Amino acid sequence: MQALLDNIRIVLVHTTHPGNIGAVARAMKNMGLSDLYLVSPKEYPSERAEWRAANAADTLAAAKVVDSLDEALQGCGLVVGTSARERRIPWPLFNPRECGERAVAEAVSHPVALIFGREDRGLTNEELHKCHYHVHIPSNPGYSSLNLAAAVQVLTYEVRMAALLVSDEMPGEMEWDIERSTADEVEHFFGHLEQVMVDIGFHDPDNPRQTMTRLRRLFNRARMDQMETGILRGVLTGIQHKLRKSDKDNKI
Amino acid sequence: MQALLDNIRIVLVHTTHPGNIGAVARAMKNMGLSDLYLVSPKEYPSERAEWRAANAADTLAAAKVVDSLDEALQGCGLVVGTSARERRIPWPLFNPRECGERAVAEAVSHPVALIFGREDRGLTNEELHKCHYHVHIPSNPGYSSLNLAAAVQVLTYEVRMAALLVSDEMPGEMEWDIERSTADEVEHFFGHLEQVMVDIGFHDPDNPRQTMTRLRRLFNRARMDQMETGILRGVLTGIQHKLRKSDKDNKI
Repeated sequence: MQALLDNIRIVLVHTTHPGNIGAVARAMKNMGLSDLYLVSPKEYPSERAEWRAANAADTLAAAKVVDSLDEALQGCGLVVGTSARERRIPWPLFNPRECGERAVAEAVSHPVALIFGREDRGLTNEELHKCHYHVHIPSNPGYSSLNLAAAVQVLTYEVRMAALLVSDEMPGEMEWDIERSTADEVEHFFGHLEQVMVDIGFHDPDNPRQTMTRLRRLFNRARMDQMETGILRGVLTGIQHKLRKSDKDNKI
Repeated sequence: MQALLDNIRIVLVHTTHPGNIGAVARAMKNMGLSDLYLVSPKEYPSERAEWRAANAADTLAAAKVVDSLDEALQGCGLVVGTSARERRIPWPLFNPRECGERAVAEAVSHPVALIFGREDRGLTNEELHKCHYHVHIPSNPGYSSLNLAAAVQVLTYEVRMAALLVSDEMPGEMEWDIERSTADEVEHFFGHLEQVMVDIGFHDPDNPRQTMTRLRRLFNRARMDQMETGILRGVLTGIQHKLRKSDKDNKI
C-alpha cells in the first residue's frame, strides 16, 4: 500500500500563508503521503510552517520548491486540480471519493498529482486547463471555501481510504477481544434469565406477554461475547443462591 | 437534507487551544453543520478562536458551553466517540464512512452526537464508555494523531457525503454545458478525418494499419460534445479548402 501512497503527489500553487504549508505537511503525513511540491510559495521556509507541521517536520523538509506548475507536474500521468466547480467551460469532475479511487488506481503505474491553488482565489483557468480532471469537495453552498489544509485533509483521507480498500487493509469493524457466544450458550442464558424472573415473581410463563421477546431482542442484537454471557450467568446464579439462602433463613 | 445535518451535534471535550475551536466551527459550517457543544474549554471565548473561525463566526457564537459531557449529550439517541482504536476492552468500531452513514440514518429520528477529546490525550475511558460506538480515522500508524479540526473535517465531510447520497443530492459527475455528439455525428467526423488523411497522403485505405482504430479509440473515449465535433469538422474543412486552393494555385 505504501508504494501507492508514495506515488501520489500534493502540489500547492502560490500558497500565501506558511502556516497552511505546515498544516498540509501534517495532514499528508497523517494519511501516509510524503511527496510535496510547492510552486512559488509567498513565504517559505518559515518558522510558522514548521510549527504547524508538528511531527511532520520530515515531510516539510523534503518538500520541493519549484518556480512553475509545469515543473511540479513533470512525470505525472494523472493530474487533478481542485476547483470551486462552476466553470464557464465545465471540465470532467470528480467528487473526493471518485478522486481517491482514481488516484490510487492510476498510482499503480505512474505518479499522480493533486493540485491545490491559492488560499483566496484557487487555481487560475490556465492552471485548471492543465488538468485531466477537476475535483470538487461538495461543501455547504452558503460557505464553501475550505481552509487549504482542510481541503488537503479531505482529499488525502479519500486517497488513504481507497488505498486501504484496494490493498484489503481496511481495519476490520469488529475486531473483538473475546469469542462471541454461540447460539446454544445464549439460549442457556435466556433459560436461566427466565427462571430467575419466575423465581422472583416478575414473570409468569403462563401469561408471558412480551417480556421475554423484548429481552431476547435486546440481548441478541448486542451480539454477546462469552465473557459477557459468563458474567450474566454468574449474576443470575448469585441471585438464585441469595434467594435460596434468604428462604432458608426465613424458615429457621 | 439540511434537517439531517441540523440533527448532528459536534461535542468538543476539554479543548486546550482556542484556535482549534475556531477551526472546528469553520469545518462544520463548510460541511453544513451548526450544532456545537464545548465541554469546559480551557480558554474560551477567545479572539484566536474567532480568527480561525473566519466566516463561521455565527457557528462559533452559537456554540453552547457546558460543564459536563452528560449535559452535552442530553437528548442524543446515538453517541459516537473518536478513539485511537487500541483499547483494552474493544468497543464496536466504525470507520469514518460507516460513521457518516449511521449518523445520517439515525439523524432522521433523533439527535446524534460525535465527540472529540483533548488535543493531547483524546477522550478518557469513562467518556468513551458513554458512547454506543467508537470511530477511528485509519491514519498512518507512524503518525496517527490528526489535528483536532482535521479530525472534525474528515468526520463532518463523511456526514455530508452520506447526507448528499441519501437525499439524492450528490452533484453529478458529468454536468456538461453542451450536448454530447450523437453516434452518427461522430461517424461523419471520422469519415471526414479519414478523407483528409488520404488527401494529405498520410493514410492509405488499402493499407490502413492501426491508424484509424487508434484515432477512433482516442476520440471515442473523450465522449465529444457537439461543439467539439463542430470545431474539428470546421478545421478539417479548412484544411481541405486550403489544399484545393494550393492545388489550383500550383496549376496556374
